[in-house]
Amino acid sequence: MGRRFHGRAWPLAVGLSLGVAAPAMAQEVSAESLKDAVNSAWTLMAAFLVFFMQAGFAFLGAGLIRSKNTLNYMTKSFMDFCIGGLAYWAFGFALMFGGSRLMPGLDHGNALIGYSGFFLTGAAGDVHTLMLWFFQMVFAATAATIVAGAVAERMKIQAYLAYSFLVSALIYPIYGHWVWGGGWLANLSQYLPFLGEGVGVRDFAGSGVVHAVGGLVALVGAAMVGPRTGKFNPDGTPNAIPGHNLVYVVMGTFILFLGWFGFNAGSTLAATDLQISVIAVNTFLAGAAGAVAGLYLSLIRTGRADIVMACNGSLAGLVGVTAPCAYVAPWAAVVIGAVAALLMAASLEFVEKVLRVDDVVGAVSVHAAGGLWGLLAVGIFADGSYGGVKGLIVGEWAQLVAQLIDIGVVTVWSLSTGFLVFWLIRRTIGLRVSREEELAGLDVPEHGSPAYPEGRRLPAGVVVTPT
Amino acid sequence: MGRRFHGRAWPLAVGLSLGVAAPAMAQEVSAESLKDAVNSAWTLMAAFLVFFMQAGFAFLGAGLIRSKNTLNYMTKSFMDFCIGGLAYWAFGFALMFGGSRLMPGLDHGNALIGYSGFFLTGAAGDVHTLMLWFFQMVFAATAATIVAGAVAERMKIQAYLAYSFLVSALIYPIYGHWVWGGGWLANLSQYLPFLGEGVGVRDFAGSGVVHAVGGLVALVGAAMVGPRTGKFNPDGTPNAIPGHNLVYVVMGTFILFLGWFGFNAGSTLAATDLQISVIAVNTFLAGAAGAVAGLYLSLIRTGRADIVMACNGSLAGLVGVTAPCAYVAPWAAVVIGAVAALLMAASLEFVEKVLRVDDVVGAVSVHAAGGLWGLLAVGIFADGSYGGVKGLIVGEWAQLVAQLIDIGVVTVWSLSTGFLVFWLIRRTIGLRVSREEELAGLDVPEHGSPAYPEGRRLPAGVVVTPT
Amino acid sequence: MGRRFHGRAWPLAVGLSLGVAAPAMAQEVSAESLKDAVNSAWTLMAAFLVFFMQAGFAFLGAGLIRSKNTLNYMTKSFMDFCIGGLAYWAFGFALMFGGSRLMPGLDHGNALIGYSGFFLTGAAGDVHTLMLWFFQMVFAATAATIVAGAVAERMKIQAYLAYSFLVSALIYPIYGHWVWGGGWLANLSQYLPFLGEGVGVRDFAGSGVVHAVGGLVALVGAAMVGPRTGKFNPDGTPNAIPGHNLVYVVMGTFILFLGWFGFNAGSTLAATDLQISVIAVNTFLAGAAGAVAGLYLSLIRTGRADIVMACNGSLAGLVGVTAPCAYVAPWAAVVIGAVAALLMAASLEFVEKVLRVDDVVGAVSVHAAGGLWGLLAVGIFADGSYGGVKGLIVGEWAQLVAQLIDIGVVTVWSLSTGFLVFWLIRRTIGLRVSREEELAGLDVPEHGSPAYPEGRRLPAGVVVTPT
Repeated sequence: MGRRFHGRAWPLAVGLSLGVAAPAMAQEVSAESLKDAVNSAWTLMAAFLVFFMQAGFAFLGAGLIRSKNTLNYMTKSFMDFCIGGLAYWAFGFALMFGGSRLMPGLDHGNALIGYSGFFLTGAAGDVHTLMLWFFQMVFAATAATIVAGAVAERMKIQAYLAYSFLVSALIYPIYGHWVWGGGWLANLSQYLPFLGEGVGVRDFAGSGVVHAVGGLVALVGAAMVGPRTGKFNPDGTPNAIPGHNLVYVVMGTFILFLGWFGFNAGSTLAATDLQISVIAVNTFLAGAAGAVAGLYLSLIRTGRADIVMACNGSLAGLVGVTAPCAYVAPWAAVVIGAVAALLMAASLEFVEKVLRVDDVVGAVSVHAAGGLWGLLAVGIFADGSYGGVKGLIVGEWAQLVAQLIDIGVVTVWSLSTGFLVFWLIRRTIGLRVSREEELAGLDVPEHGSPAYPEGRRLPAGVVVTPT
Repeated sequence: MGRRFHGRAWPLAVGLSLGVAAPAMAQEVSAESLKDAVNSAWTLMAAFLVFFMQAGFAFLGAGLIRSKNTLNYMTKSFMDFCIGGLAYWAFGFALMFGGSRLMPGLDHGNALIGYSGFFLTGAAGDVHTLMLWFFQMVFAATAATIVAGAVAERMKIQAYLAYSFLVSALIYPIYGHWVWGGGWLANLSQYLPFLGEGVGVRDFAGSGVVHAVGGLVALVGAAMVGPRTGKFNPDGTPNAIPGHNLVYVVMGTFILFLGWFGFNAGSTLAATDLQISVIAVNTFLAGAAGAVAGLYLSLIRTGRADIVMACNGSLAGLVGVTAPCAYVAPWAAVVIGAVAALLMAASLEFVEKVLRVDDVVGAVSVHAAGGLWGLLAVGIFADGSYGGVKGLIVGEWAQLVAQLIDIGVVTVWSLSTGFLVFWLIRRTIGLRVSREEELAGLDVPEHGSPAYPEGRRLPAGVVVTPT
Repeated sequence: MGRRFHGRAWPLAVGLSLGVAAPAMAQEVSAESLKDAVNSAWTLMAAFLVFFMQAGFAFLGAGLIRSKNTLNYMTKSFMDFCIGGLAYWAFGFALMFGGSRLMPGLDHGNALIGYSGFFLTGAAGDVHTLMLWFFQMVFAATAATIVAGAVAERMKIQAYLAYSFLVSALIYPIYGHWVWGGGWLANLSQYLPFLGEGVGVRDFAGSGVVHAVGGLVALVGAAMVGPRTGKFNPDGTPNAIPGHNLVYVVMGTFILFLGWFGFNAGSTLAATDLQISVIAVNTFLAGAAGAVAGLYLSLIRTGRADIVMACNGSLAGLVGVTAPCAYVAPWAAVVIGAVAALLMAASLEFVEKVLRVDDVVGAVSVHAAGGLWGLLAVGIFADGSYGGVKGLIVGEWAQLVAQLIDIGVVTVWSLSTGFLVFWLIRRTIGLRVSREEELAGLDVPEHGSPAYPEGRRLPAGVVVTPT
């Protein structure tokens, strides 16, 4: 065992021959090394929570789709983070953080793209660089998996796996470089001096980088693969296609909410930054306010307490607060979360009735609408208490302008590159299963088994008389 | 992005214009600031685990009820922490910790009630205060959600939402102030000098504050909403009404057990307090001993290994060790956990057969019986190794007297305020759904959808011949 | 409440009489005490994640078996860690770490067995010892629960409970002592000087100690209890017996993957050992590569994307990297994970078609094949960057020899002691339920309830016409 020889300070008796020298004993405990330790522990633990969001997305989405396609959806959810993580190891991370010099081995890159750290070799094998990679990788995987729910129930598994690779290797990291990797959006005032020195796009934990990118690519994917058979009537009006297990939906939302604490508060990459408490509080309040807004909206509209609206409301609130979570006061987080839920509800109508796109789980409305709102909210609610970021609320307009520019950039980038990726896949692998497969359900033809091999549930309304 | 400019000590090259000054570079790394960092990280991570207990309560309870009411229960479970958390932000925290001066902005309050920190504004916006709020908020949410299982399958959703607000804004925090906020119970010897100096109620992580309050309010709620139709025969004998998914029950228990480590060990609010290891060990041992006691009790009684008894036994053990976890030795934790499970089993009989109250999931027996036992256990098993708390086992009687007084106080407080709240709701919103809704199941009339929209399971005993 | 008087440095006003002296105020904040704090926090949090793996094993296995035996499996999964944890408290820990002198109270033991620390009494009640116990206990529980899936659907619950006790009290800890407790395998070069000074078996987080032991005991258990009725045809060819819920399987795998970060990275027992980032990265990459290898293997073989192969592939990758995770580079973790998945797939065939053993969930192939491969991988891929462990890749052969010896030892130990334990249980309690119970399902006769009390699912292929 290697473990006990490293780190514990308890004096091993010299007489006990353990066969290995114990470096921990001689290790200096400087304040600097302790800072490294507490910040590494914090960042990794937060990343583990973000990793777990994959399970939340899987559970949530599985519940919102029909059981005949459940195994297909679970496979996509499980494989996208595996493939996406490997793509981010090989290419994505280098494109995103090359040139940022945030950690060793990330020296080469420019304002548009990075190009060092491929495969984490050489100097990029440093423990600090690996810590950064791990945290960023779970973010890339989150962006990738957002799409699964929008294109569920009719996209080919192989097409989806190809998409997972491309989004994690290219689409996500290049835009990410612009905002988080020292690229042009982070330093916008260098190109637009009227903004005033030091003003650039601020997206603390990724309302834009992760959620708007994922949600907008999801919109393209759902549009290009086309609606599920039966979703729209000949006159273009939509039909509701209920999922199969709302317990899964609520449990998935709980898991996502949990993971979001790591997502946002971990984005300091440091527990020595005590702002982590503010971020955790704001994250909770926005998610709670979003849930309450979603639920009461459904009660007002229909007289029914619609739990899916509450869940999606809380997720929209969480997405919305992701960019501003470090920059705003708790009351503002409540406002941001509640508004995010209302925008999400409006977006659901818009996507389905105006765009006539079939987004099975509402991924576009939660992540794209919520994410763009989050970017805007930084420009409105940032109160200057952190990182010098100041919004309208304290009388500054430059940040708002920067955020509006970012909203435009992320929209154009995600829609156009998303189109290219899905167009390429359509031309090669093909995007959509056959109509026969779709009607029968994707699970057996694509995966060789139903999700529930013992049989299916009894259809609603069937009366069976016990014998 | 704000993240990289704060906290990481890696020297960013001066030549790289990231657009924002990097305060981390200049940050001093004093031992005091490192202590703040490690304790904030610990407390927040523990709070995240406690947050996740909401998912455990939801899964556990959903499995123990019938599928026709599952969506209603999930909605209650999901919304109570959202509403409760907002109520605790607005009012509860200020009532509970105002005057404690534990953190900035909590200066005003007396022995009966606190009154500063409302909405976390002003000095209460300090990072330390927000850390305390976050940890305490997830505790308040836990107290609130305990009730959901007891009143399941017949309480109106709107009544439950109103209850969630009131318990988190008023009932929980006022009693909490007395024990944890510097109130009269914490300082009991000031009012009862015969106890000896420095003796007051000790409830380390809330057997009383969280679980007994939640469990006793649940008892009142279940009694006032009345039993489910069919639960009791005309002669008063009870019928078993099985739930619908015992996999959910066990998974929910696993999640709760996980969260409990945060609940108890996080209650130091500090990793620099190395007692956290003792607490984690005691928490595990009590939960394991409770499970074993519950399982073997069922084997002895019926010859069957009843997993619900094992789950509720482990939860009772965990509730029971919550107050004494920091004050007792591992062997005592085993005893406390096993006794808690036996008391829980006795309480199940008492509640159902003597009180004739219909507590669907056994919340009263797990949380109230287990919680009161936990308060008592402090007075018996505390060995003086921590915080100077000494029980019968080391020959001191004063702590036991203080704990007995607390048992009386928490019982009277919870039953009486619980009655007031549910009485008020009954007079306004009404507590109970109509008989028709109850028989049909609450999911469709209250929420517009069944939990399993594709249909229901085939009733047991039905024979279907494949065609 | 005890909590606020310990640890927080916020100066409580002297005028506020809280009734208890506040030791935190006077507490010194030395670098040494901060190191203790951050390492305790890290180790406990990691242990909480490992604890949660129990839920992953439960969910995964429940999905892979038939619904008629689901409650039985959940009961085994829930009880084995409770009983195993208590056994490890009473006996296992003392046998494993007695004589290691790693922490106070562990002074007595020799190269073959330890004998101090029973019941964590005396000096073993130290906070550091309790921290070590807690982390090691969740490992012991993991080893125990691996067997549940292999023997599912036909082993008596009482036999399984007896097995849980014996494996956690004896089999696991004695071998563990040899590798992690200062025993002979850790110091192999003392007995085989040709290996060169300081060379011994290295198994960082337990590919051998936990997974190979669990997987090999599982092989014995599955062989001795015999195959499920209907598993093998009279000519010895196997039949596939599908499980009942593949959503559970994927969710269980997600939970296990999450827990593995604690399992491997926590095995430093220290966040001050910054290698934790390397370990986390390697753990992820091996799991992801295993999943991709498993999935594409199934696609190549059958044209179907088999999610169970992907899940078991990722788990095999995780098992495989458990021993080498601290000693190898990221690229090597990718190779180790992919190879582990392929070996797992080969082992599935071998166990079923050659050995003709009925391993319901593939536990032997994931944990034994993966675990032995992990031990070997240390001898191949260790690059000398950590702990001085060097494999073939840097031209050293001695480590590989040590690992090969360990592979032999763990195989002989696990198979022989596993045989003894199950033989003993067969002679006393009996291993197998009656044929009638097996055909009807174990849930009702052994546990008094089906897992889904409202009824069972509709068999596949049944057509029901709504009335």
